[in-house]
Amino acid sequence: MTTTAPPLTLDDVRAAAARIEGVAHRTPVLRSRTLDALAGAEVHLKCENQQRVGAFKFRGAYHAASRLTPAQLARGIAAYSSGNHAQAVALAARELGSTAVIVMPAPPPPNGAPAAGYGAEIVTYDRYREDRAAIAEALAAERGLALIPPYDHPHVVAGQGTAALELVEETGPLDALIAPVGGGGLIAGCATAVKGLHPATRVVGVEPEAGDDTRRSLEAGRRVTVPVPRTIADGQAVATPGELTFAVNRRLLDGIVLVSDDEIRDAMRFAFERLKTVLEPSGATGLAALLNGRIDPLPRRIGVVLSGGNVDAARFAELCGTPR
Amino acid sequence: MTTTAPPLTLDDVRAAAARIEGVAHRTPVLRSRTLDALAGAEVHLKCENQQRVGAFKFRGAYHAASRLTPAQLARGIAAYSSGNHAQAVALAARELGSTAVIVMPAPPPPNGAPAAGYGAEIVTYDRYREDRAAIAEALAAERGLALIPPYDHPHVVAGQGTAALELVEETGPLDALIAPVGGGGLIAGCATAVKGLHPATRVVGVEPEAGDDTRRSLEAGRRVTVPVPRTIADGQAVATPGELTFAVNRRLLDGIVLVSDDEIRDAMRFAFERLKTVLEPSGATGLAALLNGRIDPLPRRIGVVLSGGNVDAARFAELCGTPR
Repeated sequence: MTTTAPPLTLDDVRAAAARIEGVAHRTPVLRSRTLDALAGAEVHLKCENQQRVGAFKFRGAYHAASRLTPAQLARGIAAYSSGNHAQAVALAARELGSTAVIVMPAPPPPNGAPAAGYGAEIVTYDRYREDRAAIAEALAAERGLALIPPYDHPHVVAGQGTAALELVEETGPLDALIAPVGGGGLIAGCATAVKGLHPATRVVGVEPEAGDDTRRSLEAGRRVTVPVPRTIADGQAVATPGELTFAVNRRLLDGIVLVSDDEIRDAMRFAFERLKTVLEPSGATGLAALLNGRIDPLPRRIGVVLSGGNVDAARFAELCGTPR
Repeated sequence: MTTTAPPLTLDDVRAAAARIEGVAHRTPVLRSRTLDALAGAEVHLKCENQQRVGAFKFRGAYHAASRLTPAQLARGIAAYSSGNHAQAVALAARELGSTAVIVMPAPPPPNGAPAAGYGAEIVTYDRYREDRAAIAEALAAERGLALIPPYDHPHVVAGQGTAALELVEETGPLDALIAPVGGGGLIAGCATAVKGLHPATRVVGVEPEAGDDTRRSLEAGRRVTVPVPRTIADGQAVATPGELTFAVNRRLLDGIVLVSDDEIRDAMRFAFERLKTVLEPSGATGLAALLNGRIDPLPRRIGVVLSGGNVDAARFAELCGTPR
């Protein structure tokens, strides 16, 4: 029997942290007496909604872009994204003096619009018919661009893991870490960081009920594809886990729990009214899991990654303006 | 010619800071590249929306309550408030093992409801007809309660000033400090703190257009009464400045600027979408002044007190769900 080396290590996350320092924000860790009382635990919220571009995605995108050669940066970067990764790559390209071409669904979601504001070129596709990865790959090949995928790349995953590294540097060892799972990059990086530091920490992923591809894949022991999920958690509307991210998550995750769209809305409303902080649907799934007792057994000290806050006021009003 | 002693000094604010330490939150100071670019200045946002009870009011209420004797605390505390001060006194009473009776307008505004949650007794009045101060004073006399007024009391004002003291401890000298003006307690305390430390700092108050009683009073050189203001900035719906607060503000304020309800809505939306933080209308008036070029001449380093974030999701949707 042979053991293969882990595809990613704590040192990779540490190297990413050194590269993004001073460019990405070291985001605040929020505490709330109300939340602790409701959850029955000591909860530490890592506010990636306060990250540049409003989501953790800037960590991975900037880290990956910073690894490109000057020649690659001169030719430009390509990316495909349902929103936050688009902004992240566009801003990373600008910060590094490069240019970006972003493939995004038509019509572009509100989250995607700012990418153009950072100077990126936008190419659209039909999200329910076309394969965005294939389009972006063809475009990258044609124009000689460096493709930065939204999750399935070691530099991207290592970058996302810096969120959890910063969190545990501030809190010390946690009994559990909760993070949303879309393509699996955030939780793969975070699990690598926290388990590298404290192997006993449980790492639990949260998926929307309609997009439980990682849960099914972990159960099946192989990557499973679900129909394109229709959920308000658009950052997690992913049909199948990444190859690399699944390889990491298979080793490191202690479980996946599911939350409904209504539970996500309630968690967004809770964040707004009690924490005074703005979360997009995907950003609120960890909180939704906690507020609905999905973390069982309940650990004492819990870290939760609030992954993003890109929801405009009109969309928030639509989702949360009337109690259900 | 005689010079009278100032009614309040930096030492009073420092004494208040020592008393509230560990009970009130030391709230975060938020920076935003987007805001700096739009404002054309270096802006430091003091996030009192993250204070306990969601507003700066807890500072003054707790400080004043902490000065009561054990016998006074045993008899209980009375307060009148349009919302945040009610919660603040209710929580302060609970923290000190006392009880609170709150006089609030009927029907109680959404901000007021949590006061009952902290165990306070609620007594209502008609906000457009009755004099809440008189009702509260009668009630206090009848039951032997200690009345903590919302602004016109030296312990309350000194407590509110700790917000600015903390801010400048973190930022160093500021060229200007901007804060909302209702009864004038927040800005009186803050002006005492920042001018005590750095006399050259300009202190500018912001009032809603409909509630410009302090601006008119400063111009007239005496306290002027305006009709009860009808504005979305309910924390500033005050008809006349306090006696003590006006005495302080006459000496220390460099000016008052006005913002419209539409400008306040836009500032709330800006805070939501760009800063990912939740502000109630009064909490957004400083930001509204800055975003609409009201601070003239524009200083380089500016502190802004974001005074509170108590707005529920339904009310936010109503105010900000559709762009104007």
